[in-house]
Amino acid sequence: MSKIMAINAGSSSLKFQIIVMPEEEVLSIGLVERIGLPGSRLEIEYGDDQEFELVEDIPTHDRAVELLFEHLGSLKVIENFDEIAGVGHRVVAGGEIFKDSALVTDEVIQQVDDLGEFAPLHNYAEATVMRAFKERLPEVPMAAIFDTSFHTTMPAVNYVYSLPYEYYEDFAARKYGAHGTSHRYVANRAAEMLGKPVEELKIITCHLGNGGSITAVEYGKSIDTSMGFTPLAGITMGTRTGDIDASLIPFLMEKLNITNVQEIIDIFNKKSGLLGISGVSSDMRDVESAAEEGNERAQLALDIFYNRVQKYIGQYVALMNGVDAIVFTAGIGENSAITRKIIMDGLTFFGGTIDEVKNDTRKEAIVSTDDSTVAILNVPTNEEVEIAREVIRLSK
Amino acid sequence: MSKIMAINAGSSSLKFQIIVMPEEEVLSIGLVERIGLPGSRLEIEYGDDQEFELVEDIPTHDRAVELLFEHLGSLKVIENFDEIAGVGHRVVAGGEIFKDSALVTDEVIQQVDDLGEFAPLHNYAEATVMRAFKERLPEVPMAAIFDTSFHTTMPAVNYVYSLPYEYYEDFAARKYGAHGTSHRYVANRAAEMLGKPVEELKIITCHLGNGGSITAVEYGKSIDTSMGFTPLAGITMGTRTGDIDASLIPFLMEKLNITNVQEIIDIFNKKSGLLGISGVSSDMRDVESAAEEGNERAQLALDIFYNRVQKYIGQYVALMNGVDAIVFTAGIGENSAITRKIIMDGLTFFGGTIDEVKNDTRKEAIVSTDDSTVAILNVPTNEEVEIAREVIRLSK
Repeated sequence: MSKIMAINAGSSSLKFQIIVMPEEEVLSIGLVERIGLPGSRLEIEYGDDQEFELVEDIPTHDRAVELLFEHLGSLKVIENFDEIAGVGHRVVAGGEIFKDSALVTDEVIQQVDDLGEFAPLHNYAEATVMRAFKERLPEVPMAAIFDTSFHTTMPAVNYVYSLPYEYYEDFAARKYGAHGTSHRYVANRAAEMLGKPVEELKIITCHLGNGGSITAVEYGKSIDTSMGFTPLAGITMGTRTGDIDASLIPFLMEKLNITNVQEIIDIFNKKSGLLGISGVSSDMRDVESAAEEGNERAQLALDIFYNRVQKYIGQYVALMNGVDAIVFTAGIGENSAITRKIIMDGLTFFGGTIDEVKNDTRKEAIVSTDDSTVAILNVPTNEEVEIAREVIRLSK
Repeated sequence: MSKIMAINAGSSSLKFQIIVMPEEEVLSIGLVERIGLPGSRLEIEYGDDQEFELVEDIPTHDRAVELLFEHLGSLKVIENFDEIAGVGHRVVAGGEIFKDSALVTDEVIQQVDDLGEFAPLHNYAEATVMRAFKERLPEVPMAAIFDTSFHTTMPAVNYVYSLPYEYYEDFAARKYGAHGTSHRYVANRAAEMLGKPVEELKIITCHLGNGGSITAVEYGKSIDTSMGFTPLAGITMGTRTGDIDASLIPFLMEKLNITNVQEIIDIFNKKSGLLGISGVSSDMRDVESAAEEGNERAQLALDIFYNRVQKYIGQYVALMNGVDAIVFTAGIGENSAITRKIIMDGLTFFGGTIDEVKNDTRKEAIVSTDDSTVAILNVPTNEEVEIAREVIRLSK
């Protein structure tokens, strides 16, 4: 039995799980949020539904790690840090360098830091947190697990933009995608559930959460994904536009009297998507409730969301010239039976039909009818377990 | 017999055809180019392959119209301007106002001018040219034919962007599309060729020229199209990016030391697409030649072009939950058998297979095999004849 810590650091947050392997049991889960902001706090769930909360000023990620270790110890979640057999750090941007997860060395930390311009909200924080963990647990194997690694198998025809080619050569401006750990996990799990080798299947994985992306997994490899150079591109998300005509940027800058282009990109990332269309919320459940009560913009937001997912599925059926399985996962994908149903009811031409009884679930299940030529699956994602598995694999 | 002038004005050009109706015979064709630029010239083709050229300073569109009338008269292309039974003006942006072609009045000209912010390179010039024609031919019926009208049947779910909804309400920031005259013409023609009412067909029309767009024509109506707020969006084009992650704009501005966002949009419009990827040319034929000679970037440009068209076809199959016919038109679409073949060979899952013998044509033809469940057609577009037809229809 070994305990693995799975760490997910953002610009102002630090989430963690302690997972017992190989049982894949979660021993403790928690987070530090609002790091460097007013109202910062630490929360740890452990034992039999026990919960610890600390509200105090937490100015830096270093301090967040320090507090985490202190309280995991004092709460006896971990009696002795020798028990920690490994740590896995989720990293958003791995660029073209990291085609696989990597054992964390000083060089790797530096590379993660250097890739910060591709994910400024994440990579710098992740590098800082890796350094803090290395100082405290110098002998413990640590792995960096990249959101982009799974997508490094994409062929150039899908990752090269129709820009002057020098921008790719000189600045690495290309499609990277995200959510790779989740797409890989659910694609492999779907193949297992279907009892077929993933190497023989054409799978479309729909990771639909507050952020969302869709991936074409052909014979086990990601060959295209809807997020782009950054997570802004692709489908409509909680607060992000997804794909949009770039000409809207100068037009809106003039209309809104905005002179800094980054302000517009911030609006596209933080005030658009379901939130922007509906004016209600970025949370699918709130938008669904408002629509049920007759809010027309909320209904339009839902319709646009379904529509964009359907169009991406269509793209990837075209790209693979067929599809064997369509997989739903993440907050919306695995929990909203109605979302799966509406999306798939509009795509019966491809050969998959939802079975309403089987689809009434939040658990792992094949939710298509027996006579579907395309299988539809619900596969709850588990990025933390996938991170823990990667730590075990790399530290062997 | 009546003679109709079809006029197509751009920011520095004025193209025309004189078409005899109802025979739909072209009597004369020509253009004024480089208006307001060094090296401006007028060219008129007429009679039995006769050609007239005038190279002189042509500073304004008014002067271009003046010269055109002068030389059509002196060349006896038109002996008496009473012969002109009508004039049709192509207009790029009709906004949400023009859901159909319109007889040109002073109010219509003003509205076209007011819509200039949606198509600054075209609408202002078009309004100027309409005024110049009205002055010279005050009694002749004139019609404005809008590139966007055919797409005004799009439902909100496809034209609303995932932006704050106020941007649509306050600034009319939405998808408008383009090439509407062409998409309508080839969709209707395809239905005739298939011997079925267009109202019963799901058609995908692929207008592939130097600019390109793809439209989902469901039961005779455009329900979605690949160009967006402007013609920048959609598939890879001769010099345009098509769809791209908007986050690339601030990233590239920093890398290229560009402070004016419009400069980046200009690069996206004029130096990207086939030209940008290949580094060779914006012209498909040049890129094909270079690829044949082993130029890898040229081959990549071709592969990306095919890929983006395929993905849009897939989107629209998803959107309509099926497809009865896929139609190719415009410079590349109607002339490049190999382009049609490569695109459709990757999409056999949808039920259409190219017949290589039938596909070896530049003329109107059904180019799929007899056992295809999806028909594939080649339909040369003719926007000028469509404009002339609209003039006749509206002036009756």
